[in-house]
Amino acid sequence: MFESVEIGHQTPKEEFEKLEPQLRADLLDAQFDLREQAPFSVVILINGVDGAGKGETVNLLNEWMDPRHIETQAFDSPTSEEAERPYMWRFWRALPPKGKIGVMFGNWYTDPIQERVEKLTKKAELDQHLDDIVRFESMLVREGVLLLKLWFHLPKAGQKTRLEALEKDPRTRWRVTELDWHYYKLYDRFREVAEHVLRRTSTGEAPWQLVDGSDPRYRALFVARALLDALRRRLDAASHHWEPRQTAPALPPVLDGQNLLNTLVLDQPLSKKDYNIQLEELQGRLAMLVRDKAFAARSLVLVFEGHDAAGKGGAIRRVTAALDARRYRIVPIAAPTDEELAKPYLWRFWRQLPRRGRVLIFDRSWYGRVLVERVEGYCSPADWMRAYAEINDFEDEIIAAGGIVVKFWLAISADIQLERFKEREAEPHKRFKITEEDWRNRDKWGEYERAVCDMIDRTSTENAAWTLVEANNKYYARIKVLQTLCDRIEAALKK
Amino acid sequence: MFESVEIGHQTPKEEFEKLEPQLRADLLDAQFDLREQAPFSVVILINGVDGAGKGETVNLLNEWMDPRHIETQAFDSPTSEEAERPYMWRFWRALPPKGKIGVMFGNWYTDPIQERVEKLTKKAELDQHLDDIVRFESMLVREGVLLLKLWFHLPKAGQKTRLEALEKDPRTRWRVTELDWHYYKLYDRFREVAEHVLRRTSTGEAPWQLVDGSDPRYRALFVARALLDALRRRLDAASHHWEPRQTAPALPPVLDGQNLLNTLVLDQPLSKKDYNIQLEELQGRLAMLVRDKAFAARSLVLVFEGHDAAGKGGAIRRVTAALDARRYRIVPIAAPTDEELAKPYLWRFWRQLPRRGRVLIFDRSWYGRVLVERVEGYCSPADWMRAYAEINDFEDEIIAAGGIVVKFWLAISADIQLERFKEREAEPHKRFKITEEDWRNRDKWGEYERAVCDMIDRTSTENAAWTLVEANNKYYARIKVLQTLCDRIEAALKK
Repeated sequence: MFESVEIGHQTPKEEFEKLEPQLRADLLDAQFDLREQAPFSVVILINGVDGAGKGETVNLLNEWMDPRHIETQAFDSPTSEEAERPYMWRFWRALPPKGKIGVMFGNWYTDPIQERVEKLTKKAELDQHLDDIVRFESMLVREGVLLLKLWFHLPKAGQKTRLEALEKDPRTRWRVTELDWHYYKLYDRFREVAEHVLRRTSTGEAPWQLVDGSDPRYRALFVARALLDALRRRLDAASHHWEPRQTAPALPPVLDGQNLLNTLVLDQPLSKKDYNIQLEELQGRLAMLVRDKAFAARSLVLVFEGHDAAGKGGAIRRVTAALDARRYRIVPIAAPTDEELAKPYLWRFWRQLPRRGRVLIFDRSWYGRVLVERVEGYCSPADWMRAYAEINDFEDEIIAAGGIVVKFWLAISADIQLERFKEREAEPHKRFKITEEDWRNRDKWGEYERAVCDMIDRTSTENAAWTLVEANNKYYARIKVLQTLCDRIEAALKK
Repeated sequence: MFESVEIGHQTPKEEFEKLEPQLRADLLDAQFDLREQAPFSVVILINGVDGAGKGETVNLLNEWMDPRHIETQAFDSPTSEEAERPYMWRFWRALPPKGKIGVMFGNWYTDPIQERVEKLTKKAELDQHLDDIVRFESMLVREGVLLLKLWFHLPKAGQKTRLEALEKDPRTRWRVTELDWHYYKLYDRFREVAEHVLRRTSTGEAPWQLVDGSDPRYRALFVARALLDALRRRLDAASHHWEPRQTAPALPPVLDGQNLLNTLVLDQPLSKKDYNIQLEELQGRLAMLVRDKAFAARSLVLVFEGHDAAGKGGAIRRVTAALDARRYRIVPIAAPTDEELAKPYLWRFWRQLPRRGRVLIFDRSWYGRVLVERVEGYCSPADWMRAYAEINDFEDEIIAAGGIVVKFWLAISADIQLERFKEREAEPHKRFKITEEDWRNRDKWGEYERAVCDMIDRTSTENAAWTLVEANNKYYARIKVLQTLCDRIEAALKK
């Protein structure tokens, strides 16, 4: 795999000086078009052998282009902020918006490779990690990100020469550390692992490009040209209309009109008196659970979805009443901001993920992708069809990092909804709660119902099952939410 | 995940009888269009709980449609033919051609699930297997296959009732075996594993569809409608023009004109006398190696690629001279047959794979996808870009099943090629070897060279490295081929 970057490519000084001005001008132009049209974002991964010129190349790109629109990110050991969240969190945070270029120096490949080189992980673990990466990158590409993966290579002898040269020069001596020589000794092992990683993660959508790091001039021209070509091709493609092929078969029809929602018995009895007794008891239990020592190492992510006027807000208030206000946060999800629209759709949820010991409550959530966006046609069928798997992967990552994910669908009947809408319109202090949109959504009751059922079928997983809450009676609904929540946390803390 | 198929859907008899005639007519129409236009093939996977009506449903499809164009395949324990080849071989063999429907009853999911239920494999192994399956199915979808994955479900109580009912009826008693009851006892475990498998393999391109198996009429209508909808949507889509989005960045440019091929020293000295001595010695060594006891459990797959007139045929003859004619086969690859064109492009190579103890020699190979098909534009850039990873997966499967894969690129200079072309034209018994096409290919020397270098960079893997053979001197080339071959087999047998 490294054969052709071990040839020892070279560019003479005169040739470099002849090509440089035009290349810089072209790169600046392309960057300008990217910024102005902002049809996509660019992510450049910088990986490879130490001493192969990774840093110099990134510096050069910043010098040749407008550095205000390049976000260079270096990832060292995770900060405590980062360590308390899922592995991919810090990379999600660093994704550039449309119109910008993000250079990631040390990235999601760094740890898996390093850990395998040092034999801290087994081959099967590495492969599982790589498969997660392939799924993640595939999602990025489908979200329109232009992903450029550069691997800087030096043959073993070249690495030695280079480290020695750096050490000899008093101005660069500081750059060579003991760790560099430690890695040099691991060269063969590193090469072997790297070859495996490159091979498993070079997909048709996001292949690796190998960079011969031995000659600074050649290397610089190579990377600049690779970036320029990729930018130009995508800018051209973006100006064409493109319709994704809908290869997935249609979701199955419901034949007898029976589905998960309309077979629920929505009217469940519970008197106000019994409610008050149980409420106090359950809130007490919940308060104890989130103050348990074991909870300090976990986090809790709650998702509330449901029909309009199903009582999400009321249920959430009964939950938060038992929590410490410094340790929970409610995130109401409405239309995305401009900043959020410029990133892959899951970005705005990733950015919110809590640290250990905290509770995060989503009032509506990422499920908007397969509910409102599907029903209203805000995204294509191919987009929401792939979202089920992407959402499952997202929740898996939260859970793998110790999170507890509990999801509620609050269901009411169309009659009860109508009653509540009218009530709200009548009461001045509740009028803000009811909008034109609510009435419009009501007209699409059947379509939403279908989308909800598909959602539950496809995302009620072993780790993060949905709980359907019969909510015609608010008292009953709130108690069921609290009861489920306590049971789920208790079960999770026992593990 | 199984919630909505545990509702207990039902279709009354009268309704079924009202809907059936039209549905049958529509299905027959769709099947007719599929056969006439033959734009794609259909693969239906039938999996799920025993007793949920899998067999009955397949029988019904055959009854309702034209069974001559439905290929139903059941896969039991592998035959000895199958056991001696890579795991996926028997499924590849069974892929239907364009225009036909293949129903796979027991398929690539059966063993991974069963082995995990019986705790013969670990979770990590299952996940690795599932990721391979996702890659495989993604390839099928991109090759245009309409993939319908049906999971038949019954709740635990339903399965018991059904098995008891079958046992009571003398006409169906034979269908219930001890194994069925054994599996029934494993129900909860099976459900848990199944949920995990469905979740990991429900992708946007190829999601699972869950079938409520409890009512035969509902089940029949459901499957028939799901198939009809999927067929109609794809037939409609096929009649539109569709251009895949080229999301991959362009392959990197070569800047200094140096590449793997043109930096080779193609003229290597070896006299005829030395050649004859070494040839005899190496052929003797090779003959011993393939007759070694350890080789009986392995197989050998050789790939010969190279410039026109580079001496592939001559080299192959020097190899086969050392082999037992009953144990090797040469497969020359030219344009695909009609039958081959109707399947995913790797099918024609899969079908050839040898049993244990055998040698298979490809004179040109699957690399045509990234060489001639790329250069001549026979497939789209998106197609050949994804082929590198698909080819690596293919070779991985051969190697995982004990195969040894050795790949040669025979390189000559343009001058030597011209010389040999002229020689061939002059000699009557060699004239058949030189065609118009050979002259045309020569005009694209540079483009082919670039494609070869990309191929070697991307498919020279840890398990199956390319060997570049400097072939201006035929003697030298043949010796290098034999030498490499012996070394590689020897190394593999030691493992």
